[in-house]
Amino acid sequence: MPRKLVEEQLVHFLNDDIGQGDATTSAIIPADLTVTAKVIAKETGIAAGIKEAVILAQLMDLKIKTNITDGDEIKNRQVLMQITGDAQTILTVERTLLNLLSRMCGIATATHKLIKKLESIESQARIAATRKTAPGLSYFDKKAIIIGGGDSHRLHLDDMILIKDNHIALLDNPVDAVKLAKKNMSFSKKLEVEITDAKDILQVAKAGADIIMLDNFTPEEAYKAAEALKNAKLPHEVLLEVSGGINDETLIDYAKAKVDIISIGALTHSTKALDISLEITKKQTPK
Amino acid sequence: MPRKLVEEQLVHFLNDDIGQGDATTSAIIPADLTVTAKVIAKETGIAAGIKEAVILAQLMDLKIKTNITDGDEIKNRQVLMQITGDAQTILTVERTLLNLLSRMCGIATATHKLIKKLESIESQARIAATRKTAPGLSYFDKKAIIIGGGDSHRLHLDDMILIKDNHIALLDNPVDAVKLAKKNMSFSKKLEVEITDAKDILQVAKAGADIIMLDNFTPEEAYKAAEALKNAKLPHEVLLEVSGGINDETLIDYAKAKVDIISIGALTHSTKALDISLEITKKQTPK
Amino acid sequence: MPRKLVEEQLVHFLNDDIGQGDATTSAIIPADLTVTAKVIAKETGIAAGIKEAVILAQLMDLKIKTNITDGDEIKNRQVLMQITGDAQTILTVERTLLNLLSRMCGIATATHKLIKKLESIESQARIAATRKTAPGLSYFDKKAIIIGGGDSHRLHLDDMILIKDNHIALLDNPVDAVKLAKKNMSFSKKLEVEITDAKDILQVAKAGADIIMLDNFTPEEAYKAAEALKNAKLPHEVLLEVSGGINDETLIDYAKAKVDIISIGALTHSTKALDISLEITKKQTPK
Amino acid sequence: MPRKLVEEQLVHFLNDDIGQGDATTSAIIPADLTVTAKVIAKETGIAAGIKEAVILAQLMDLKIKTNITDGDEIKNRQVLMQITGDAQTILTVERTLLNLLSRMCGIATATHKLIKKLESIESQARIAATRKTAPGLSYFDKKAIIIGGGDSHRLHLDDMILIKDNHIALLDNPVDAVKLAKKNMSFSKKLEVEITDAKDILQVAKAGADIIMLDNFTPEEAYKAAEALKNAKLPHEVLLEVSGGINDETLIDYAKAKVDIISIGALTHSTKALDISLEITKKQTPK
Amino acid sequence: MPRKLVEEQLVHFLNDDIGQGDATTSAIIPADLTVTAKVIAKETGIAAGIKEAVILAQLMDLKIKTNITDGDEIKNRQVLMQITGDAQTILTVERTLLNLLSRMCGIATATHKLIKKLESIESQARIAATRKTAPGLSYFDKKAIIIGGGDSHRLHLDDMILIKDNHIALLDNPVDAVKLAKKNMSFSKKLEVEITDAKDILQVAKAGADIIMLDNFTPEEAYKAAEALKNAKLPHEVLLEVSGGINDETLIDYAKAKVDIISIGALTHSTKALDISLEITKKQTPK
Amino acid sequence: MPRKLVEEQLVHFLNDDIGQGDATTSAIIPADLTVTAKVIAKETGIAAGIKEAVILAQLMDLKIKTNITDGDEIKNRQVLMQITGDAQTILTVERTLLNLLSRMCGIATATHKLIKKLESIESQARIAATRKTAPGLSYFDKKAIIIGGGDSHRLHLDDMILIKDNHIALLDNPVDAVKLAKKNMSFSKKLEVEITDAKDILQVAKAGADIIMLDNFTPEEAYKAAEALKNAKLPHEVLLEVSGGINDETLIDYAKAKVDIISIGALTHSTKALDISLEITKKQTPK
Repeated sequence: MPRKLVEEQLVHFLNDDIGQGDATTSAIIPADLTVTAKVIAKETGIAAGIKEAVILAQLMDLKIKTNITDGDEIKNRQVLMQITGDAQTILTVERTLLNLLSRMCGIATATHKLIKKLESIESQARIAATRKTAPGLSYFDKKAIIIGGGDSHRLHLDDMILIKDNHIALLDNPVDAVKLAKKNMSFSKKLEVEITDAKDILQVAKAGADIIMLDNFTPEEAYKAAEALKNAKLPHEVLLEVSGGINDETLIDYAKAKVDIISIGALTHSTKALDISLEITKKQTPK
Repeated sequence: MPRKLVEEQLVHFLNDDIGQGDATTSAIIPADLTVTAKVIAKETGIAAGIKEAVILAQLMDLKIKTNITDGDEIKNRQVLMQITGDAQTILTVERTLLNLLSRMCGIATATHKLIKKLESIESQARIAATRKTAPGLSYFDKKAIIIGGGDSHRLHLDDMILIKDNHIALLDNPVDAVKLAKKNMSFSKKLEVEITDAKDILQVAKAGADIIMLDNFTPEEAYKAAEALKNAKLPHEVLLEVSGGINDETLIDYAKAKVDIISIGALTHSTKALDISLEITKKQTPK
Repeated sequence: MPRKLVEEQLVHFLNDDIGQGDATTSAIIPADLTVTAKVIAKETGIAAGIKEAVILAQLMDLKIKTNITDGDEIKNRQVLMQITGDAQTILTVERTLLNLLSRMCGIATATHKLIKKLESIESQARIAATRKTAPGLSYFDKKAIIIGGGDSHRLHLDDMILIKDNHIALLDNPVDAVKLAKKNMSFSKKLEVEITDAKDILQVAKAGADIIMLDNFTPEEAYKAAEALKNAKLPHEVLLEVSGGINDETLIDYAKAKVDIISIGALTHSTKALDISLEITKKQTPK
Repeated sequence: MPRKLVEEQLVHFLNDDIGQGDATTSAIIPADLTVTAKVIAKETGIAAGIKEAVILAQLMDLKIKTNITDGDEIKNRQVLMQITGDAQTILTVERTLLNLLSRMCGIATATHKLIKKLESIESQARIAATRKTAPGLSYFDKKAIIIGGGDSHRLHLDDMILIKDNHIALLDNPVDAVKLAKKNMSFSKKLEVEITDAKDILQVAKAGADIIMLDNFTPEEAYKAAEALKNAKLPHEVLLEVSGGINDETLIDYAKAKVDIISIGALTHSTKALDISLEITKKQTPK
Repeated sequence: MPRKLVEEQLVHFLNDDIGQGDATTSAIIPADLTVTAKVIAKETGIAAGIKEAVILAQLMDLKIKTNITDGDEIKNRQVLMQITGDAQTILTVERTLLNLLSRMCGIATATHKLIKKLESIESQARIAATRKTAPGLSYFDKKAIIIGGGDSHRLHLDDMILIKDNHIALLDNPVDAVKLAKKNMSFSKKLEVEITDAKDILQVAKAGADIIMLDNFTPEEAYKAAEALKNAKLPHEVLLEVSGGINDETLIDYAKAKVDIISIGALTHSTKALDISLEITKKQTPK
Repeated sequence: MPRKLVEEQLVHFLNDDIGQGDATTSAIIPADLTVTAKVIAKETGIAAGIKEAVILAQLMDLKIKTNITDGDEIKNRQVLMQITGDAQTILTVERTLLNLLSRMCGIATATHKLIKKLESIESQARIAATRKTAPGLSYFDKKAIIIGGGDSHRLHLDDMILIKDNHIALLDNPVDAVKLAKKNMSFSKKLEVEITDAKDILQVAKAGADIIMLDNFTPEEAYKAAEALKNAKLPHEVLLEVSGGINDETLIDYAKAKVDIISIGALTHSTKALDISLEITKKQTPK
């Protein structure tokens, strides 16, 4: 997203936290004091949100230096960035900057761990996000997933066609739903359909689904579905996605089942923030 | 917050998720179909965000019934609310509604668990939020804390005076910082100061601090601080807050140390969403 | 798009036209006069924007009746809708309502004419929009295209991958660009690539392009491309799109060339508005 | 309009087109590549929107050079501007920049053609805009009219008093409407009234109309109206405006009828965009 | 201004006052209590802002009754409106409602007093506003002036041409400035010019000024200017405006000088709010 | 408040005044003229809004120099700031800049006068603002109060607990109201209660009120209240505030009564703007 559009969101976050100004700094911190602060990680992880932190600091007329890039590994006690500028401003922006950065790092870190697991068994499966982000944060949450090595999946509802159980409940069956969608949708989008019954797999694939989401399939059932699909030799590639209730233990089983995509809502709806803090380290004589 | 102001934020969340519209429902769901959906909890917890969900549904011209109130206990498989209206609209708003609801319930549930623990030992200590919310979500995150039985702490930076380590790093010592703040601050606000060294407690209290935050004190050290303060018989009440690194195990120890406030950032920065889903259950003949 | 989000845009259009209020109506029209007005077409066409007009009128607390639906044929002199309510309000909103309605009807009408042409030769080709809309109006312009029978194509830049000449200018060749995109893109999106040289068609198709845009191909060249693609018997369906410089005369030739999509920027960048006006027909005694 | 206010609108246009970012450039274009692009006209016309394009490019931190000014004649194949900067950014902003520029140039070009016609017969009549702009674009559409040599007419509804047929339908007759307006309106505004019957001309003029709009008058009738007005030797200047259904052929006839203003809605509601494109011409080694 | 656009501004005012909600009412007022409150004037004046207060109350889902209309005289202790609804909501909105209402009544009252003075000597002069409003409040401030019987003057900078001393300082003299403006301005606007030297009056009038503003003229000088203008028998009406430093005492002198418009910045930049308060009078059993 | 957030409000003020642009300057002032202007006080007072004026000028790409700081005394005819830049821009922004500056200086000046009075009798009482600001201007109005030496009091409704007469009307009595508030409120806020009857003072103080507001107490009654409170030797400090109907004469009497806070709504609801104007003094040859 271009910088200007990111800036708009960052200003919204600032407004949310600041209200009419930082009562503490205006009461006790001199107006013209220049200081330097370090942003320091308190645990290991994957860097994400570095760009956003830089934009936020620059937006506040602060100078910021960093030699870490989104996607890099973070060491415990590593200095992620160094910020120099007006003391009042740094103290005012500190929390907003850390909140975004630690959330994005947390998401990237969790994503990366799952991907490392998949890599350890040389799986080709992708870890994907869902739309279960914190409200209003889809851009940042999805970006952190991508930085962590995952796939964004749909960005919003206008992105692709994803026929879920609630849609099918209103139509007769998944196959007819797929056929109807193929007729009405734009050629520019992909079509995914969620199925609950293995018997529908080949039919929805033949009807034109690009991706099939297996709902509550065990790894064994998922494996059978993948095999059936492979053997069907369809004229177009059909991807298999599993979603829902996947945890650290079952992840490997699903990956071995040869599914293509494993989407995990918890990455964004139950994020664990990375522990990062800001320390003012250098105080300069007033300007 | 008045309904109109909440509506503005909810529309922002909708925009974030929807983009130019729900490509799936517009491709396959008839335009004039009325349906009924149930919002169902998949685990136990504490209800929060019910009001926001009702406002969001009504904003979309949907009818919504609920017999649960913010703060109530949720049973597994409990139907939290029933929504009736245009099928396309329900399917479009489903994810935004669930994302907010499950986040707020998750926060309230986690808060409530800690409070139950404190109650079990008849502690008077309060569990409090911090400003470590998801960016832009401070209102909803803090409200969920309160519903769960916790204290909102500062809502934003203009709320109270809270002198932290980074402020003190720029001044000579916590006592002078408190004195300076007392001179410049509005009479309408409280003054809190974070200290790292037990020797400063009585001095900052005498200088006028309303609340003292103990940084990285062990439960034993916190207990000594509380005792010292009690014995000092100061002319005004001074509350003690502990913050940072408190977990399920140490919580009880700090509570026993007679501190007044235990603030926990993880409640909002590392939220675990409550598992809630929406199921369309009744399809009516088209209008 | 849900009604609330449409309302936001309509209010923006109103603000743009009204400024601080309608100086004329407030100077000469009584404050409590109820009138009825008819919105009348002055030429034939296809109805589009009816829903938006209804929302706009209701937003202004006006009653509106219509027995025409988006997509219907409009007869010359047909009454499209009847609006009843406060006279000052109707006069104030008149121009904004007509500007949007006549633009959307104009786009739908032009789209529909092209589709009729294609139907006359039983072509399966789709007419598609481009991103060449009026600035800020992509939702309304694309919706009018769809109502007219066309395909929306990409809604915005995050929708699909479309590698154009300017992208390829920065990479070595279209085939490598496609391969790079396949590696980095989300599984949830389709991939389109623009080519200028017929020799690249099979290669980009094999590399995984879902759609190929033929740039400045004559109908004959397009036909050869389509044949080559058909004969290649690729393992997945590849669509052919032609774009640029297509007019009423060449349309049929391209359609006969068996391309799948014909996209036409002029539908939205050089729209001809449908002639529609509003006439106040009934004046009631003051409330 | 000051640059900051223009920027707000341009950011709105960008948001509308971009969504959550350019999926294509982020998939295949390196992050730190600097390139140069040329904006090239593909047909002749009049330049408009140059300033807005410059602001948009600078807003995106791009360097932009142009040696053409709003109002200048554009030659076919002329390079209108040269943009240097981050490749991803140029590709992302390309379409928004071209959409606004080609619309504004299209409007200015069409306006200019009509003015050239009037100049060829040494007419003093002015070509004027109407409020029939694309929704939300009145500032840009009107500015393009002015650049093309036309008159903006009313900018929005608070600008002047313009009593139209629908107002008169609610009052007894145009003369009373004018008298009522004169009584209630601010001294700071002009008063225009639309009449359908030649017999009202002198009366509305005497009642204080500054401008009279002739509705559906033939050129002959308009000429007679102008003569009658001239002969009446009124104590203040009264301008005559014709509007509605004026085309290339009748324009000259109305001009010869000595009317002062010829307003033409089609200039903005049925704009033909000027053909302009952007070509990346120089690729630099990565920064 | 249509209700929807007024609502947007009122929500902005609410946000400004409320922050994250009314901490007091949420702490002590039951959630489902219905009460009735009276809005009572504590001094005499002219009613203004009644419509805005009604919209604001309705926006908050409160019922509001009033039998006073904008422009009516207010008696001391008069009940202006009665509001019934949720107690928390009434207490939350009270201050915003009173702030707007008492400001608008204050402006209308002050305007009305001046007009009464002018009427007492049967002067035809108009009292007019200036652009010296509170920042962001021009709509409400100007509307209150009009309700009080005054003239809005320019609403904003795009309204009319007003050449002031700072413009003339950049050109050679007021006459050339007027000529230049006449050449470049839209026919739809009036032209006013400020002069400091009586000798310029006839020249700027002849050059086409519609209104002449006399800067720092004494009443005697203004009278001479008016006479000179009358005797000149110009072909169009030219109005005379005096502005700057007019007080209660000199007002009559200027009015006797036969000037047409007396504009007074203090009406809006140094407003005295009318004393109005809200009293809760009836408490109903909880819903 | 950080600069970015102030900028947003300033742009809102500009939009409100400018509309679609300054018709006068665009008609007669050359586009590329650089000039210098002085902002000059026409009376004595206290400087406030200097920072906002600087931000506004810089936002418009103007250069601005000032050697006065918020809080300084202003001499009559003093040059407050010097602005250099594009002539059109200076003329367009002039009124918005002066409107904000003269309002803020007016508020600071009036506040300062009262404080000087208190200082003359060596009173320790504070002058405080109320929430009776101009709608939407609370940040600027409160900041001006602080600059003038006053106390901001509550910034908005989420700031502190202030139980007023209308709250108490809904509960049984002020003492129960205070007890209820103590139970439900956040530890982070102060609690103030308004009382009308002297007999409640000690009880509400004992119940935990931090501040007591005396409603309509004479100076004598206020003095007695202060004495009673002092003699009660409560375990915490309780401040006394008087509010309502305080004027220049009674101010001293209340101060002598030993109250702590004297809050005065008229400072912001009936502001007298300081007389400040802008004069263009130097015209440079065009760029």
